[in-house]
Amino acid sequence: MNRRHLLSLTAAGSAATLLPRSALAVPDVKLEKGSTILFQGDSITDASRDRKTEGSANNPAMLGRGYPFHLAGQLLADHASLGLNIFNRGISGNKVPDLDARWQQDCLGLKPALLSILIGVNDIWHKLSGKYDGTPEIYRDGFSALIKRTKEALPDVTLVICEPFVLRCGAVNDTWFPEFETRRSFAADVAKAAGAIWVPFQEKFDEAVKAGTEPAYWAGDGVHPSQAGHALMAKVWREAVGI
Amino acid sequence: MNRRHLLSLTAAGSAATLLPRSALAVPDVKLEKGSTILFQGDSITDASRDRKTEGSANNPAMLGRGYPFHLAGQLLADHASLGLNIFNRGISGNKVPDLDARWQQDCLGLKPALLSILIGVNDIWHKLSGKYDGTPEIYRDGFSALIKRTKEALPDVTLVICEPFVLRCGAVNDTWFPEFETRRSFAADVAKAAGAIWVPFQEKFDEAVKAGTEPAYWAGDGVHPSQAGHALMAKVWREAVGI
Repeated sequence: MNRRHLLSLTAAGSAATLLPRSALAVPDVKLEKGSTILFQGDSITDASRDRKTEGSANNPAMLGRGYPFHLAGQLLADHASLGLNIFNRGISGNKVPDLDARWQQDCLGLKPALLSILIGVNDIWHKLSGKYDGTPEIYRDGFSALIKRTKEALPDVTLVICEPFVLRCGAVNDTWFPEFETRRSFAADVAKAAGAIWVPFQEKFDEAVKAGTEPAYWAGDGVHPSQAGHALMAKVWREAVGI
Repeated sequence: MNRRHLLSLTAAGSAATLLPRSALAVPDVKLEKGSTILFQGDSITDASRDRKTEGSANNPAMLGRGYPFHLAGQLLADHASLGLNIFNRGISGNKVPDLDARWQQDCLGLKPALLSILIGVNDIWHKLSGKYDGTPEIYRDGFSALIKRTKEALPDVTLVICEPFVLRCGAVNDTWFPEFETRRSFAADVAKAAGAIWVPFQEKFDEAVKAGTEPAYWAGDGVHPSQAGHALMAKVWREAVGI
């Protein structure tokens, strides 16, 4: 499983306007027999997962109804000899400080060999609705500190940082911009500094909309992906991570 | 979408010992904008789907946690321009006569353009446990009559008939054989007579076990697929159906 991930080189995607494509480091994916893969994030990752089966690796209900469910199935089927243990610990409503508060229990303690994080939409959404006052810089610095803490505790972890994205429909109106793009560029900065694999969700959703489908086909409220949206995410994730 | 499905020609798979590979007719898949795809069957198809959202096409909870969930996501993402409406109406415990009893409401009334059926495990399992007395011939004739009724009501439907399968573990012991193989061959006969696309699940699970994984990795009780098993089914289905 230790091989160069050339696909990641072309996956910097929508960050290309923000930083040079070749500037994203492309680490190897280190997975061994019995390795743990962990998906972390907010409601997009959570996707109605069952809390009662939270400790049960590869449990369908625990995985939720989103991109981690699709990816767990595909990775378990395509890499059966590895006997992977896959978990979803996304929690609806989470922002960076919420991840930080539960990081020991819900990430470091699980000792993932591969950690995939998608966080950032609530950090702006809750600010726009007056429930939170974190600036884009607070998002960047908190995210960066979380990654530093992660690498200190898990020096061999393969880090996958997913681009926060929105569709232009539903709850997503002009008040989100340009701040949302600043936050996306900060996520890319964090990924680059960490040598993480970058998953270009925004670019791929933008391409899908340009190809002729309505934004709401992919996410009715602009934030939470549809059945189609989650499947597209799984596809983009696999292309970027290369497994 | 109207094109020859060459993949189906090589998908007769495990039926190859039962009938000539070229004997399976290979129909075109007829899908148009707004077409309905319906998954029908027993608990393997049901996969804990939510009944309250049963009428809501493409709803993640309605789709359950099995191969129809995987397939719905992939088909909706890869054929976004079609605007498909995908339903799961599998019901746990069902045998052929149970499908027949609810066929008007749960199949014909939905007017699917593509209908995928996986049925047969309970027809033998309930017989082995003394709860049912249907022979393999009753399975074959009932299945055949159900398909005839379907084609009369929906003359343009694209039919996909899935091979019943078991893994050799859990509840599946020697008492299942050779009767289970007779039933599999009867399912293949029904598919052939109907000109349906045949999805060779048994062959592909057998290959996966031969490659070195334990049968229980794919289905703990020998009947109900794991997260890995359902994802493999989705892959095999797409290869066979060609969409």
